[in-house]
Amino acid sequence: VPEYRKDPIFDRRVIFAEGRSARPHDFQARPAVRLNSNCPFCEGSERETPGELAAIRRPGTEPNSPGWQVRVVPNRYPALDTIDALPDQIPFAPQASTMPACGSHEVIIESPHHLHAVSQLSDEQLADVLRIYRDRLDCLRQDKRLRYGLIFKNVGAQAGASLEHLHSQLIATTIVPPVVEWEIGQSRQASEQLGECAWCRLVEDELASRERIVLKTSDFIAFCPFASRFPLETWIVPRSHASDYCGLDDARLALLARELRSVLSKLESALGTPAYNFVLHTTPFDTPTLDHYHWHIEIIPRVSMIAGFEWGAGYHINACLPEQAARVICGEITACSSRQD
Amino acid sequence: VPEYRKDPIFDRRVIFAEGRSARPHDFQARPAVRLNSNCPFCEGSERETPGELAAIRRPGTEPNSPGWQVRVVPNRYPALDTIDALPDQIPFAPQASTMPACGSHEVIIESPHHLHAVSQLSDEQLADVLRIYRDRLDCLRQDKRLRYGLIFKNVGAQAGASLEHLHSQLIATTIVPPVVEWEIGQSRQASEQLGECAWCRLVEDELASRERIVLKTSDFIAFCPFASRFPLETWIVPRSHASDYCGLDDARLALLARELRSVLSKLESALGTPAYNFVLHTTPFDTPTLDHYHWHIEIIPRVSMIAGFEWGAGYHINACLPEQAARVICGEITACSSRQD
Repeated sequence: VPEYRKDPIFDRRVIFAEGRSARPHDFQARPAVRLNSNCPFCEGSERETPGELAAIRRPGTEPNSPGWQVRVVPNRYPALDTIDALPDQIPFAPQASTMPACGSHEVIIESPHHLHAVSQLSDEQLADVLRIYRDRLDCLRQDKRLRYGLIFKNVGAQAGASLEHLHSQLIATTIVPPVVEWEIGQSRQASEQLGECAWCRLVEDELASRERIVLKTSDFIAFCPFASRFPLETWIVPRSHASDYCGLDDARLALLARELRSVLSKLESALGTPAYNFVLHTTPFDTPTLDHYHWHIEIIPRVSMIAGFEWGAGYHINACLPEQAARVICGEITACSSRQD
Repeated sequence: VPEYRKDPIFDRRVIFAEGRSARPHDFQARPAVRLNSNCPFCEGSERETPGELAAIRRPGTEPNSPGWQVRVVPNRYPALDTIDALPDQIPFAPQASTMPACGSHEVIIESPHHLHAVSQLSDEQLADVLRIYRDRLDCLRQDKRLRYGLIFKNVGAQAGASLEHLHSQLIATTIVPPVVEWEIGQSRQASEQLGECAWCRLVEDELASRERIVLKTSDFIAFCPFASRFPLETWIVPRSHASDYCGLDDARLALLARELRSVLSKLESALGTPAYNFVLHTTPFDTPTLDHYHWHIEIIPRVSMIAGFEWGAGYHINACLPEQAARVICGEITACSSRQD
């Protein structure tokens, strides 16, 4: 049974999920990405995944049959037990060293076709994906035992993907992820010092300086953050105050889809279809509205290695300034830099 | 000039080191590991590295010439400017967003021969390496502008190494790394609650349970920690209270070398020479002695990928329980598990 564990000394949780098991020879190398043949995510292979939780499909088509555009299914190798396995009494005092890891681990299959790059989607298809993110979060939010839904995407083996077919994942948990708690706390503190929302100010300052902007539209900006941890790291942030991703209506999601697709297309052409991770940070289920936080997307190209220094020190060495990174992504310069031993 | 940057919202430092630059095509894939031919770390190529800072060498041989066993040189692509570039007044109020990144970035070349695995060293050679770690830390400690020396090792391309020849690195900085500050703070808190050193207790408890022990000797234990972040993560901890690595005398270092080599040999035979990171955590230069902390070594085999969940949530999913991991490393079982999408 998947469980959270805490070290006797360190307040640092880990989920142990033995169900995500594989063979010992997988230790030898990074996992191979499963390619076209027998892809369980392609249209026509619906029976190879667990039964669908949601889908955008043509009227009149049956669940778990062809006819869909976007399809959400439980992960076959879940990191969590189902939420209904959660005991009524959770023994999770700060001292408790284990507790059951329950929630929902879902896969969002972004196309019925075997695509591997977001640029291959149309703006409308990507808008469908963003809409289903929102709708799944709103659905999971109804279960009061769940406190957070984290949406992320791994593209390419280097970024941890084991299937090539374009997909995202959603992990909904009974705890708020520590990075999100920390982000919200830091945002509160910074906003109190400023006397206004620190994210609204950040957007203004980035627009004013223009040095790190990758793309701006009427509703969103994409920029390389001032203290980027990773070369070419890019964030997408709403220009008007908005802490909850689920507050976006369909029209705004269509605009976001256009911006996101454009940013990822730039990255793909600048870097030649790089591996990357994509993370959506929004508010916890029980506090959707905050006046000091903006939901945002973090795109992390996996072009440099995380090495001993980063694990040992807890911070990053980055060989590429964000002012350069923005120009690389926009195709204005081709040289940035990369980590060497 | 290398600099620390802090985000306007987040108190999260990053070192920007443009000097560690490479060509844009390096973005396409992880860096290739440089092999035997023209290796700048091999005996006879001393002129291909910056001039040596320290060495263990045969009497009568000249610096930067053959005749050495272990050799310490400045990193040719340093993450930091030299400590003498540090301005007298450092403008580092909590609000300041940049400050110069100064210190020392050194490479410890562990053998004159082109070895790539610690198991190829003799116990005596490895003891020399551990001794030079201590001596470099003690030397750097004399400079009161420096607050910490982090020793780490990247073995294999998957772990971030770009040179195959066996080596470690030392990065000495004017700040204490946040992970070390956090570890020490958590250890203090846990020890106060226990009324004794939490690390002494941890050692006792691990010895009593025996479930996670990889190796124990009279002076040290190696075990897979209860809340391991990574499959097969292994720590080496002194059994008697000792917070400062530099307090080890030559006799103890010889025992540590034997234990460390034995643990790494087990890992290598269980996993077939895996990529791994190695980190030495000890006390800051200005507080060598703490009654609630043990120096320790963390060995992190890079057998699973860090993916979107880990970046987005700030904690890890691990498919391998440490009770299993210890048995895998000891060769008692071959099956553990690995991450799948």
